[in-house]
Amino acid sequence: MKNSFGNSISVTLFGESHGEAIGAVIDGIAPGIEIDHEYIRARLIERAPVGRISTGRCEADDYEILSGVFMGFTTGTPIAIVIRNTNTKSRDYEALRNTPRPSHADLTAEEKYHGYQDYRGGGHFSGRITAALVAAGSIIRLALLKKGIAIGTHISSLHGVSDRAFCKLDDDVKALSALPFPVLDGERAEEMRAEILKAREMGDSVGGVLETAVIGMPAGVGEPWFDTLEGVISHAVFSVPGVKGVEFGAGFGITELYGSEANDPFVTDGKTVKTSTNNSGGIQGGISNGMPIILRTAIKPTPSIFKPQGSVSLKDMENLTLNIEGRHDPAIIHRARAVIDAVVAIAVADMLAMRFGTDWLAEK
Amino acid sequence: MKNSFGNSISVTLFGESHGEAIGAVIDGIAPGIEIDHEYIRARLIERAPVGRISTGRCEADDYEILSGVFMGFTTGTPIAIVIRNTNTKSRDYEALRNTPRPSHADLTAEEKYHGYQDYRGGGHFSGRITAALVAAGSIIRLALLKKGIAIGTHISSLHGVSDRAFCKLDDDVKALSALPFPVLDGERAEEMRAEILKAREMGDSVGGVLETAVIGMPAGVGEPWFDTLEGVISHAVFSVPGVKGVEFGAGFGITELYGSEANDPFVTDGKTVKTSTNNSGGIQGGISNGMPIILRTAIKPTPSIFKPQGSVSLKDMENLTLNIEGRHDPAIIHRARAVIDAVVAIAVADMLAMRFGTDWLAEK
Amino acid sequence: MKNSFGNSISVTLFGESHGEAIGAVIDGIAPGIEIDHEYIRARLIERAPVGRISTGRCEADDYEILSGVFMGFTTGTPIAIVIRNTNTKSRDYEALRNTPRPSHADLTAEEKYHGYQDYRGGGHFSGRITAALVAAGSIIRLALLKKGIAIGTHISSLHGVSDRAFCKLDDDVKALSALPFPVLDGERAEEMRAEILKAREMGDSVGGVLETAVIGMPAGVGEPWFDTLEGVISHAVFSVPGVKGVEFGAGFGITELYGSEANDPFVTDGKTVKTSTNNSGGIQGGISNGMPIILRTAIKPTPSIFKPQGSVSLKDMENLTLNIEGRHDPAIIHRARAVIDAVVAIAVADMLAMRFGTDWLAEK
Amino acid sequence: MKNSFGNSISVTLFGESHGEAIGAVIDGIAPGIEIDHEYIRARLIERAPVGRISTGRCEADDYEILSGVFMGFTTGTPIAIVIRNTNTKSRDYEALRNTPRPSHADLTAEEKYHGYQDYRGGGHFSGRITAALVAAGSIIRLALLKKGIAIGTHISSLHGVSDRAFCKLDDDVKALSALPFPVLDGERAEEMRAEILKAREMGDSVGGVLETAVIGMPAGVGEPWFDTLEGVISHAVFSVPGVKGVEFGAGFGITELYGSEANDPFVTDGKTVKTSTNNSGGIQGGISNGMPIILRTAIKPTPSIFKPQGSVSLKDMENLTLNIEGRHDPAIIHRARAVIDAVVAIAVADMLAMRFGTDWLAEK
Repeated sequence: MKNSFGNSISVTLFGESHGEAIGAVIDGIAPGIEIDHEYIRARLIERAPVGRISTGRCEADDYEILSGVFMGFTTGTPIAIVIRNTNTKSRDYEALRNTPRPSHADLTAEEKYHGYQDYRGGGHFSGRITAALVAAGSIIRLALLKKGIAIGTHISSLHGVSDRAFCKLDDDVKALSALPFPVLDGERAEEMRAEILKAREMGDSVGGVLETAVIGMPAGVGEPWFDTLEGVISHAVFSVPGVKGVEFGAGFGITELYGSEANDPFVTDGKTVKTSTNNSGGIQGGISNGMPIILRTAIKPTPSIFKPQGSVSLKDMENLTLNIEGRHDPAIIHRARAVIDAVVAIAVADMLAMRFGTDWLAEK
Repeated sequence: MKNSFGNSISVTLFGESHGEAIGAVIDGIAPGIEIDHEYIRARLIERAPVGRISTGRCEADDYEILSGVFMGFTTGTPIAIVIRNTNTKSRDYEALRNTPRPSHADLTAEEKYHGYQDYRGGGHFSGRITAALVAAGSIIRLALLKKGIAIGTHISSLHGVSDRAFCKLDDDVKALSALPFPVLDGERAEEMRAEILKAREMGDSVGGVLETAVIGMPAGVGEPWFDTLEGVISHAVFSVPGVKGVEFGAGFGITELYGSEANDPFVTDGKTVKTSTNNSGGIQGGISNGMPIILRTAIKPTPSIFKPQGSVSLKDMENLTLNIEGRHDPAIIHRARAVIDAVVAIAVADMLAMRFGTDWLAEK
Repeated sequence: MKNSFGNSISVTLFGESHGEAIGAVIDGIAPGIEIDHEYIRARLIERAPVGRISTGRCEADDYEILSGVFMGFTTGTPIAIVIRNTNTKSRDYEALRNTPRPSHADLTAEEKYHGYQDYRGGGHFSGRITAALVAAGSIIRLALLKKGIAIGTHISSLHGVSDRAFCKLDDDVKALSALPFPVLDGERAEEMRAEILKAREMGDSVGGVLETAVIGMPAGVGEPWFDTLEGVISHAVFSVPGVKGVEFGAGFGITELYGSEANDPFVTDGKTVKTSTNNSGGIQGGISNGMPIILRTAIKPTPSIFKPQGSVSLKDMENLTLNIEGRHDPAIIHRARAVIDAVVAIAVADMLAMRFGTDWLAEK
Repeated sequence: MKNSFGNSISVTLFGESHGEAIGAVIDGIAPGIEIDHEYIRARLIERAPVGRISTGRCEADDYEILSGVFMGFTTGTPIAIVIRNTNTKSRDYEALRNTPRPSHADLTAEEKYHGYQDYRGGGHFSGRITAALVAAGSIIRLALLKKGIAIGTHISSLHGVSDRAFCKLDDDVKALSALPFPVLDGERAEEMRAEILKAREMGDSVGGVLETAVIGMPAGVGEPWFDTLEGVISHAVFSVPGVKGVEFGAGFGITELYGSEANDPFVTDGKTVKTSTNNSGGIQGGISNGMPIILRTAIKPTPSIFKPQGSVSLKDMENLTLNIEGRHDPAIIHRARAVIDAVVAIAVADMLAMRFGTDWLAEK
């Protein structure tokens, strides 16, 4: 399967930016999970554009659940979620048809779909599709939360400005769900906003690093080869538009340490075994060890900028200078946080369901 | 499927470090691919321990192909490869049974397999299993090479010492296959070796970053969501033991650039379209754009060190100090290069076969 | 994946009989396939209830395509199809909640979904969901037809009344698409209708055998083990409600022949090789041999009958006599034909795409 | 995946009749399942040729387990099983290379593998590969048995001679494991043997119908669409060479009943709910209902016969008469029983693991 993810619990995405609708189908989810629309909407708002640091496109992201939910609970059958497209301005894009935007998917879409792709607004490649992903992921994420597995993401750095590190993880993860701009240190949040606004004024854009924690993850989940927990999570995370890197625990930084510094010593209080450090990011040998899972995701600067850029006329095969107009985000990293939370929830839930069975997610 | 990878072309791994044998089964490979044992053996030698910078365990890695090859060519049916274990010293490990080694998979294996795992020498988690992965990957990699798709990996950095960047990619990739210690700049190679030997003397270990290039990759391969080329490749790469991060193109570094710096402008010579930079690492919107695919992999320092470390007696649930003995690598990064080449070949070939059909790989 | 089918081309189903909507998502379909709404609607009409031999529930089956189609052609991205539920009478079913209907899925749904299932009108188990399957399958089936692969199904027997055997396959398959009641011999069609009406008058129901031909199938498609063409097709066909058996070629009848009678001798006209008989049903060793693929499907009598039946009160755990009311089909076999055509198209197209690549289906 | 089956528990097959070895890899099996070599060998003996009613090829089917078993128990990691080929006479087949044997896979292999297939003795299509399937399936089947799920198969009919129907299922299934020629009625067994010997004398072959019961299957396993229990089981069963039809419960016979005759009324003893008949074969809506699962499989007469048959010279594209020599079975149905038992075990165990989690199979 291609635009689907997961074996035991799976999510399939569909839709184009300027088509009728976008949506997702969740299959394999346990029956008896309560649907909390307030929770889902809150997650969609985290993903939605906010104020001057985001695109001018304003959409309610009103989703409709077509199936799989009855009397307020999941039935255990596929849940189809649809979000209609309403506020679309297709004329903005027509001129761009033969002029691929640098670092967008315009040219690769052309290569793969031979000119049949819906080119309006990025079509199926549009970040807008992530609204469906967030809606689907939120149902799963809340179910995980009720099982004691909490997921939270902050902007670890934005164009060089760094947030403080995760500290008391339980408190930090809880705090993040109340923060529309997910930065733990308020001062740094202001600096980051300033960076975004500066980029906006320059007609430019910025990216950053998101750091995600999964706490409460049971030990013993994942496979030694191929379906490692890192492999499965990264597979899901790389489908979030703009992601160029994923690292776990100490990540790339671990390559500058000695083994004696990098290793996580075991300690016990006589009852349970933990590690005193967590350079492994909660995963050893592809399998969760009961410590928090920590991953960081590199999000590139939004490719839509208002500065002139080199491109090519595909019709005439000539070089030209491209000036993009329209509504665009000077940064998407604060919005991407909701998407990362969603895909991590999907990946983790699938691995848990594979290990403990389909019903596990709804068991009290 | 769990310890398998791939949809159209797949590889399944089996075996334990001190069991009868390790091996792999390749399924879905096209008929008519010539088997070049010299090529496979050369790749296994790249993975094998070399001299003082590696473990003292010396094994010929003699593989046997049990099926799927007839008269020197692939038949198109599953290829089973078996490598017998010969030089095993199981007594080294028995004492460790109840004392998990930090940052090894001993404890997670216990959690997942409830004490039934083969604990000798890391069992199914042992790096030794990668010999089977290299053998399987080499068959696929050579087939790709005959289709004009070349894969090469160098040590981009080792414990802080950096190799020069990729330059003329064709030449660099070709040069790498002749280098047992895969570093492009000879002087830096010596510095890196010195770092490894220093770590060895200290009873410690070092890690580093591998950089891989895939050249000749056709445009238009990959899916927009979930089965993105990055997602599929990273899924495979994270199953290589010790990998803690994967990044494509400019990777995490891209987060410090402006969009105007990060975007890859298109240029044409009137016939084909390329990008003048390759911060995207050859992938846009999850799909190959015809430029070289560039990825970097963070390899942690080998967890087996000879310094005392904190661990726990699982029997008594008491803290203790662990001293590991036996044969171990002060670094595996130079050996991991062959494994990364192999898994990237497997992932890329599967995506190509999915796109162009099963026979494509053998078509002249 | 659970309620999905296919690897390279896949279909995911969702929806409940009395929920908001039913639908399907097709993924992996080639770009550039023309969408012919007249063709799709004609197939939906084949599945729709007709006159007195069917249920009184009357629905337009108006589908909406939400994604994956642009300017009248498939884009290559997932196609989401939605059919709203309009004519639902939920009150009919409430009384039945604690009284499972014999040979329906009421009790198994209870076992699997622990009471959270949408019990109205069979919920997710309803034959109504096959409307979405037919819509999705029709898009694929027409694409196959343009590649020279035609699929057709007739009622081979109905409650003991037999149609004539397939004869000139090309003509027969073509003829079937014009027949709302798919029986090749007009007189037998009348006898079958009479059987259905007789069952209706008795408050009873009848079933039958559908025979399907796939003509124009290229040789060499299928796998020797597990993903045999028979295995993949039967996997799909058994998900059509009411199917209790699937056989290929001479099927169960072959067990009464000697090998010398059962074997299909090869013959050549100097250019191509055929078999002079087709007891193999176009498949040998799991792989298509270029002859027509022939399969027969046993469809059980509709389980909804108006005669008193033994059931159980799940609340009181007491035996009782159940009298079903509402709108029901005395036979579904004539409607099931469209569903069989659809799932066979999906299964065959997936195997072709796996073999020849994603774009094959749209290649001229 | 192609020559693999299963999602949570999977089996991959490899090998050619006259190659080095055949074998299987089981992945996803729970740790802690005891390996009972006596049980496995007994199943292999059921599959092995016996006396005059089978082929003259005599092989010990000595298997070796290379991995995944430690101290007599499954470790939870992939189990690789290898059976060496010893008694091969390749010369018998060389003359046949350009002359496909009717109703064998010779021609389809040629179509799929373009002449690279190992043509000796049927290569990868050989029934010999089922020895590996039986070995793998036996490990899983015994684990199921310890969970109270027993599988048994008898020859329901052979070339028109019928065994008595299943009666007291528990006793019958138990009795079958002691019967080398699996027929419940001893007199009928003799008649069947006589039929086989008669066919042998004529240089001909016979087929028949196998009937399989799975008792002790928990209710609630299977999916409503696509991954129905029937669909998944039939997918597996059709990969057994020679199978041309699969039916569940009343199967094709149900098409001649009225709904009132076909429906299975529910009855309760105040504690549990059963059906008083089992025309559904233990499955309703694709999901197990707690009644025994009953399926019947049509096995065609062995295609290797010693009578002259029409074939074609692929080299000269001319019609010719083929006379097959060598060692062949006049019937394989009594041997196929062990293979059906094995694949049914694999399919059922996968569905159970998907539903209840990986460890379920080993839980006491």
